[in-house]
Amino acid sequence: MSQYWSDIVHKLTPYVPGEQPKLDNLVKLNTNENPYGPSPKVMDALRQEVADTLRLYPDPNSEALKAAIANAHQLKSSQVFVGNGSDEVLAHVFQALLKHDLPLLFPDISYSFYPVYCSLYAIDYKTIDLASDFTINITDYDQPNGGIIFPNPNAPTGMPLPLQKIEQLLKNNTQSVVVIDEAYVDFGTQSAVSLINTYPNLLVTHTLSKARSLAGLRVGYALGSQDLIEALTRVKDSFNSYPIDRLASAGAIAAMQDDVYFNKTCEMVIATRTKLIADLESLDFEVLPSGANFIFAKHSTKEGAAITEALRARNIIVRHFKAPTRISPYLRITIGTDAQSLLLIKALVEILS
Amino acid sequence: MSQYWSDIVHKLTPYVPGEQPKLDNLVKLNTNENPYGPSPKVMDALRQEVADTLRLYPDPNSEALKAAIANAHQLKSSQVFVGNGSDEVLAHVFQALLKHDLPLLFPDISYSFYPVYCSLYAIDYKTIDLASDFTINITDYDQPNGGIIFPNPNAPTGMPLPLQKIEQLLKNNTQSVVVIDEAYVDFGTQSAVSLINTYPNLLVTHTLSKARSLAGLRVGYALGSQDLIEALTRVKDSFNSYPIDRLASAGAIAAMQDDVYFNKTCEMVIATRTKLIADLESLDFEVLPSGANFIFAKHSTKEGAAITEALRARNIIVRHFKAPTRISPYLRITIGTDAQSLLLIKALVEILS
Repeated sequence: MSQYWSDIVHKLTPYVPGEQPKLDNLVKLNTNENPYGPSPKVMDALRQEVADTLRLYPDPNSEALKAAIANAHQLKSSQVFVGNGSDEVLAHVFQALLKHDLPLLFPDISYSFYPVYCSLYAIDYKTIDLASDFTINITDYDQPNGGIIFPNPNAPTGMPLPLQKIEQLLKNNTQSVVVIDEAYVDFGTQSAVSLINTYPNLLVTHTLSKARSLAGLRVGYALGSQDLIEALTRVKDSFNSYPIDRLASAGAIAAMQDDVYFNKTCEMVIATRTKLIADLESLDFEVLPSGANFIFAKHSTKEGAAITEALRARNIIVRHFKAPTRISPYLRITIGTDAQSLLLIKALVEILS
Repeated sequence: MSQYWSDIVHKLTPYVPGEQPKLDNLVKLNTNENPYGPSPKVMDALRQEVADTLRLYPDPNSEALKAAIANAHQLKSSQVFVGNGSDEVLAHVFQALLKHDLPLLFPDISYSFYPVYCSLYAIDYKTIDLASDFTINITDYDQPNGGIIFPNPNAPTGMPLPLQKIEQLLKNNTQSVVVIDEAYVDFGTQSAVSLINTYPNLLVTHTLSKARSLAGLRVGYALGSQDLIEALTRVKDSFNSYPIDRLASAGAIAAMQDDVYFNKTCEMVIATRTKLIADLESLDFEVLPSGANFIFAKHSTKEGAAITEALRARNIIVRHFKAPTRISPYLRITIGTDAQSLLLIKALVEILS
């Protein structure tokens, strides 16, 4: 406790991201990074931007990047907001759109950064239990609220919700903002972006860290009506004029424009996922349906924590969540390359034998 | 007014940064960028970092960057906080350290982002008038407060305050945090960093956008006691786990390590400033004493707004602040190259004749 700290700081329990170990020769399947590097066109664009012009500020409004994103989604630039990773975008979303008298609603099992944002901005919230099969039951959100947010596919389960359910939710909830956090949507989940022009209270967030292979570059964005985007822009312009640096902008533009590479690598990840699920099931794992570049799996007898530790001893890192207890038997495993899947399965055979 | 916006958004008047025009052949002297590009060692480090590893998250704690900054200032890494430009660092400072029951104090003429942060975080503040010669009178801050912040050299005047005055302020004010915003300190102003180990309530902020020629890369930092840094880290970890991308980190480390280039370019800017001030004085400008890479100057007869407009018509961009009226006669002119100074003086001769 320090007299110098603002009150809010004493109450914060910061988010703890997955480990970024500095060891070599790891099979790193813990933070849902793409096993395939960025598009060669991204590399070219970045090399070109390493120039004397780095002495100059970037465009504070990131117009070129917003145009590239708008184009990729067939929207207008005024429907796009960009930020320094989708975590920054989400932080602004919580402050700009989700702080109201009524509580914000999100699932009890979800992205664990949400309650942290709520404490940072003193936002009242209420969690809604997932069903016993971990699905989101849309009608549970039929109650007075100051906003609704969840990831689709959900974190850390990876389970997708069909578009029709999202639309039903929007029809039942027109008075507050509905945020669909689509960080992992490109790996086989239906996107809600197609609903944006119909529902002015829908905001969809995306990241370039997963399907676009650019976790190291920190770019995320939100898509929605001009009205919602304006609120985000006002907060951003009261926080940091230039969140997107020149290199991040150049790399992100190239990534958004290279759909061929994007589609190919997404398909490779999905194919590896299909094989890995089958292999895990043959080792007595129960794997939840996944629309993401990770899976959530529990073994029929062996505890999640014990498997995680045994894998780590073999230089394979996966993620394990101790709480809430409903999910503590599970491992969250990022989809890597086929070769990494083989190493994982080989290690699991050893551990389980 | 939108029903979807959080209350705070309706009350915001965002900061407006200096223009980043997309025209070529401009003499751009409006946003205090360095006329010299980044160190060649920065370029090498950036090129090396354009690699497959961009698919991976950066170190969320930026340990290597903090070590490089600590080393440059002879402090410990635990005394360093880094952010996505010093504007982001300042935003976290306002939220983490400057929100208290008593009002925050800052000069009436200062960095115009400060009142914006106050409205973003609902911080009570009180401005203290500069003296009629635009100096900061330290004893004016001898009053109950929830924090004190000002830039040194001050913005937009460029006037430096001697270190002894800063120490006097710290001696008189031990109960709240004193933030010295040293964005421009390397151009001839005494830094307060040497006082950090003596005063646990002193926080000093720096940027790599000015003296390190990296406005396009977005890196800033704060230096202070471990206690103050911990508050900032808690807020940062509740906002965005990875604010510094892999390229920004690599470039910033190389910049912090190349003191030879840094000292040389700072000296060149200072030499150009000396000549420019003499030339402006010979054209009947009054120029405030500057410890920054910009000067604040007013003409004996011609209005600041009119000169700004006439310069713009000649493709020379400087910054003019309409309010408060005390400073409206002044132009803020970034120090460019000697060649740019010549073009500026030539244009002014035309305009004033």
